[in-house]
Amino acid sequence: MIHPRTLRVGYDQTISVVCVVGSELNVNLNRSAPPSSRFFSVKCTPSVQYSIGPSPQKTYHFSPIPLNGNSVLLIRMSHASQHENDSKLSVWYYGVSKEVLGRAVLHLTAVEISLDVDADRDGVVEKNNANKASWKWGPNGHGAILLVNCDSEWTWRKKPDREQENVSKVSDLKDMSVMVLRTRGPAKLPEGYKLTMHISQGDAESVRVFRPRTSETKNNTLPGKHFYKYFVKDYPLVLSSEVLSQEVPYLGEAAEMNFYVEGLKFLDKDFSGLIRVNLSLLEPISPGLPETPIFTDTVVFRVAPWIMTPNTLRPVEVFVCSTSDNNQFLKSMRNLVIMSGYKLKICHEFVNRGDRWMQDELEFGYIDSPHHRFPVVLDSPRDGELLDFPYDELLGPDFGYVTRVAQKKDVSSLDSFGNLEVSPPVTVNGKHYPLGRIIIGVAFPTATKGRNMTKVVQDFLWAQKVQEPIALFSDWLYVGHVDEFMTFVPAPDRKGFRLLLASPDAGYKLFRGLHNVGHGQAKLFEGLGHEEPITVDEILNDEGLQAENNYVQSCIDWNRDVLKRELGLDDEDIIDLPILFKLVVEDKTEYKAVAYYPDMVNMIVLGKNLGIPKPFGPKVNGHCALEAEMCYLMEGLGLSCTFIDDFASYHQLLGEVHCGSNVRREAFDFKWWNLEM
Amino acid sequence: MIHPRTLRVGYDQTISVVCVVGSELNVNLNRSAPPSSRFFSVKCTPSVQYSIGPSPQKTYHFSPIPLNGNSVLLIRMSHASQHENDSKLSVWYYGVSKEVLGRAVLHLTAVEISLDVDADRDGVVEKNNANKASWKWGPNGHGAILLVNCDSEWTWRKKPDREQENVSKVSDLKDMSVMVLRTRGPAKLPEGYKLTMHISQGDAESVRVFRPRTSETKNNTLPGKHFYKYFVKDYPLVLSSEVLSQEVPYLGEAAEMNFYVEGLKFLDKDFSGLIRVNLSLLEPISPGLPETPIFTDTVVFRVAPWIMTPNTLRPVEVFVCSTSDNNQFLKSMRNLVIMSGYKLKICHEFVNRGDRWMQDELEFGYIDSPHHRFPVVLDSPRDGELLDFPYDELLGPDFGYVTRVAQKKDVSSLDSFGNLEVSPPVTVNGKHYPLGRIIIGVAFPTATKGRNMTKVVQDFLWAQKVQEPIALFSDWLYVGHVDEFMTFVPAPDRKGFRLLLASPDAGYKLFRGLHNVGHGQAKLFEGLGHEEPITVDEILNDEGLQAENNYVQSCIDWNRDVLKRELGLDDEDIIDLPILFKLVVEDKTEYKAVAYYPDMVNMIVLGKNLGIPKPFGPKVNGHCALEAEMCYLMEGLGLSCTFIDDFASYHQLLGEVHCGSNVRREAFDFKWWNLEM
Repeated sequence: MIHPRTLRVGYDQTISVVCVVGSELNVNLNRSAPPSSRFFSVKCTPSVQYSIGPSPQKTYHFSPIPLNGNSVLLIRMSHASQHENDSKLSVWYYGVSKEVLGRAVLHLTAVEISLDVDADRDGVVEKNNANKASWKWGPNGHGAILLVNCDSEWTWRKKPDREQENVSKVSDLKDMSVMVLRTRGPAKLPEGYKLTMHISQGDAESVRVFRPRTSETKNNTLPGKHFYKYFVKDYPLVLSSEVLSQEVPYLGEAAEMNFYVEGLKFLDKDFSGLIRVNLSLLEPISPGLPETPIFTDTVVFRVAPWIMTPNTLRPVEVFVCSTSDNNQFLKSMRNLVIMSGYKLKICHEFVNRGDRWMQDELEFGYIDSPHHRFPVVLDSPRDGELLDFPYDELLGPDFGYVTRVAQKKDVSSLDSFGNLEVSPPVTVNGKHYPLGRIIIGVAFPTATKGRNMTKVVQDFLWAQKVQEPIALFSDWLYVGHVDEFMTFVPAPDRKGFRLLLASPDAGYKLFRGLHNVGHGQAKLFEGLGHEEPITVDEILNDEGLQAENNYVQSCIDWNRDVLKRELGLDDEDIIDLPILFKLVVEDKTEYKAVAYYPDMVNMIVLGKNLGIPKPFGPKVNGHCALEAEMCYLMEGLGLSCTFIDDFASYHQLLGEVHCGSNVRREAFDFKWWNLEM
Repeated sequence: MIHPRTLRVGYDQTISVVCVVGSELNVNLNRSAPPSSRFFSVKCTPSVQYSIGPSPQKTYHFSPIPLNGNSVLLIRMSHASQHENDSKLSVWYYGVSKEVLGRAVLHLTAVEISLDVDADRDGVVEKNNANKASWKWGPNGHGAILLVNCDSEWTWRKKPDREQENVSKVSDLKDMSVMVLRTRGPAKLPEGYKLTMHISQGDAESVRVFRPRTSETKNNTLPGKHFYKYFVKDYPLVLSSEVLSQEVPYLGEAAEMNFYVEGLKFLDKDFSGLIRVNLSLLEPISPGLPETPIFTDTVVFRVAPWIMTPNTLRPVEVFVCSTSDNNQFLKSMRNLVIMSGYKLKICHEFVNRGDRWMQDELEFGYIDSPHHRFPVVLDSPRDGELLDFPYDELLGPDFGYVTRVAQKKDVSSLDSFGNLEVSPPVTVNGKHYPLGRIIIGVAFPTATKGRNMTKVVQDFLWAQKVQEPIALFSDWLYVGHVDEFMTFVPAPDRKGFRLLLASPDAGYKLFRGLHNVGHGQAKLFEGLGHEEPITVDEILNDEGLQAENNYVQSCIDWNRDVLKRELGLDDEDIIDLPILFKLVVEDKTEYKAVAYYPDMVNMIVLGKNLGIPKPFGPKVNGHCALEAEMCYLMEGLGLSCTFIDDFASYHQLLGEVHCGSNVRREAFDFKWWNLEM
């Protein structure tokens, strides 16, 4: 819908006007007619189009039209001018006997102006998309996308590019969204006119715009063929939190100029992600008076959310720590990872300083746009000895970094990212979550005290929106991480995955079965020097342990009910794994749970290969009954179990395989902007 | 949709369970069956309802049902228990020859629990509204409403009630939303069970909940008949930013307990207004282990937005300042206000300390809910000598107060609330704004320097949402307020109002007309001792003044185009008033506009009576031509003009009638929650 601009035209004057093609000028004829005018007529050169409102009664061609109180002349230009003032329009005013009383003359210069973005999300900046100024979710939606420029083009003396006021390297431009200013018109704008790009104060915190020092020609803006200059100084800053408005060059004739837009802020509680960039044509008035914007074109960007990757996505790299005591574990992990066909990355001791909990210090995710995508590590406020690893070792070219700073007193064990997982894609009561749902662990919402994931991280996760989080109850565990009682594995049927849950009931059932068939004297922990073996019957006869596991089962059942409800799961989508827990005293009066034997659910999932903590369960005919049950349950899904001995180096330190590793995975094929929100 | 709770039932055990009526227990029969069980059967007392899944094949009544891997028993209770454990259910397990292997017995206690709010927005807290946990805008919408408790029950030593941790007076309860906890069941909950009310950490900043120390009985919660206790100490605090979860009493049998909920925070950039309050039933485990929430009921509130009142609403009170030099003005105002039938409130000099700009220090608005409504003054960060007036003189019982604190360096003349207005209701391209749209003035968005309304106030205004703001260009004015060039008056036809705009073109046209009929020597400012008279011809011959007014007209036209677009107006909805401006130098290099003669558009609108700055225009046959034109234009709308001499006491200080007054108006009949958003 075109909203015409009011233009004042005095009689017996000649004025020069710039008109943007596609816009409309509205002249109130009566307002500036000579006194006693009764009629008027209009003449113009062919490039000018006009209409008169209200529509005059039919008259002879060129015969004067009666002037009334609300006579309006609407003027448009069909195409850009080649020279300044090359189009003309005049209004003649007549008296009662049609004598000429005065004449107003307009000299018109038409320009085409379009600020363009990739509003249709195909990776190419199309021309003047009708929807470029608004955002709509979904496959039929529209609106351009911005990445937070959170990687670092430099690997040495690095910091995230968004923290530098300039383009940090020419290669940095590919992390930015291209915005094209397309103009057409005379070689120069008429004296005093200029183009200005501008953003609001609120948006300025979240975005920066650069441009090349001189023009890039049309041929260089073909898709995939951006031509970059070699020097950073060739890309001056146009807009930032310090500069909300700046003149940009008008290049003359048919021209295109690329701009490069970078996001600075991730979505959060106080930032919903929408950003507007405007381009205005300014008309001069006279010195000391502000220039008037007579045409404004606006484009919208949405900042891409940070997205997590579930176990069902293909792995790329596996990260583990090397410590003085985990040689055997490392070897088993290397075998599993190499055999599975993925890369193993070892974090050495001089970096990890003895902190082996690779899962807990960071979470891998990514940000995505039609023009570019790269992994982004979310750094936990846990800040163990691994605290520098995400920044020092991961941040780099096309590897982004984001963190949330919490006060030390607000950080607990629940802020470790073993307590941050994500489900595979699900549909819940007809609502699709094609990117799955984030899962975190907290205290019961009813708890008057208890540990929680810190608010700044929770706010960040909820603000991303595309993987709407679910809060489980994990404070019943001593360590308190959701990965101690649940995981997801791929499956060929049903919803494409199974939820695995630790289950003391399943454990007791298995042990009772062993007892019933005469294996009550089989021993757990056999052959482990550092742990006293114990028989199946001893476990079954320990009423205290049974009571503790009843409690643990009720905690897991509570979470099971939440997961069924929030992920739309049936009982058939869930597999109970035979795992026992025991309670230990925390803070003298509170009891919290730890795994009784290596916690098999705390596994690493690498495609169809599972790396599972070796449980050291009771042996039946030379085979561990827990391993056998696990293999039986997983092989039905086409999954292969590798049992990894993590007893001394992880289990006894209250973690397992999953806690001690991390997997970077491929991104979803599904594009987040195709979500229906 | 009911999501059943997993219940573990061991064989050869009798367990006691509490079940909330309307919820469902899910027993996995296989999980806890004795080994070798092949069949089962279920018996229960009449108040228990159960179903078996998957549905068993037809069998003889009471004959055992085959047990398979996923046999599930779903249990419900049809109504509340009178006594603890008064309902029973047992599951019998059988072997392959149907011999009894074991029996699990449940002793059931059923309770009804419902946390209720006025989700249907009729002022009455209905029982267990199916939509109470979500918010939907519109006349067919739902969701309860919360007021920010921003008035002060005390008039002495007052502060807004929301700033006090306790109920400040028993009368304060009527500013709060009533929430009712309805329970039914045995006289006491079984040992160790309890009810807990809780909120999230995020919501806790925005809400407080109180309850009566002991129960209020059912009869006292009838609509409009709330029975309040006499002492504040009878209303202990339940939830606040310090206490996120607290036990609340279970009163036994059929009981209702009122809770009182107060909002603490207005909508703003980081607060969208939705708040959840939860009530859970906790099951005890054993000392040292957290109690488990086995049932949670949730209600949602939305905090009411702050709403402005346009000129088309009925006035209630008119506020003006008394100063040492405005006696004559005050007298004229009193006559007009009394004649119009409204109340005049005078702010005396010991309060205003010479600051006469009553319009600029504050804006009247209100907050509304189905249970209560009261006016709320928005205090400007302008903070002239009137700065204490809104807090000291207006804040009180059922008169709320809100402000936004800005840094002194960010505050300019554009933060005065002569620069904050609101349109009457409009429809724009099919979109309804039944509460109108807020209008503020700023610099051009393209300006590299310029004055703006400070960000904290703009963020507040935008966050209210129900009167989506429009930003005009007012920085061209020396004072910089939108009320210097526009106002709205009621009209009997078209959209129910007209937009009045100052128009130098209309002024020149009128003066040229006077000249043409021989009144070129008529004088403006005649009889004013303190201003040199000037003739119509002298004005018409002043080319500099004409140029200045051309510029002013272009600024107003720019705003006219924005207003037409954003309010959906036609030219016929706009009336141009004959008003000239002149430019003065500001900051040595910039020119800004002030009114040449008293700025008639800067009027006070009191129903059909307009109080207009007396323009002291040229006299024709003893009558001021400007007044005559004004009366002609307004009388067509059925409006009556009173011209008020504000020349020395306001106009020469760069303000007029509107700047020097403020009107508190009645609220809209339209309820904001009926908006379709």
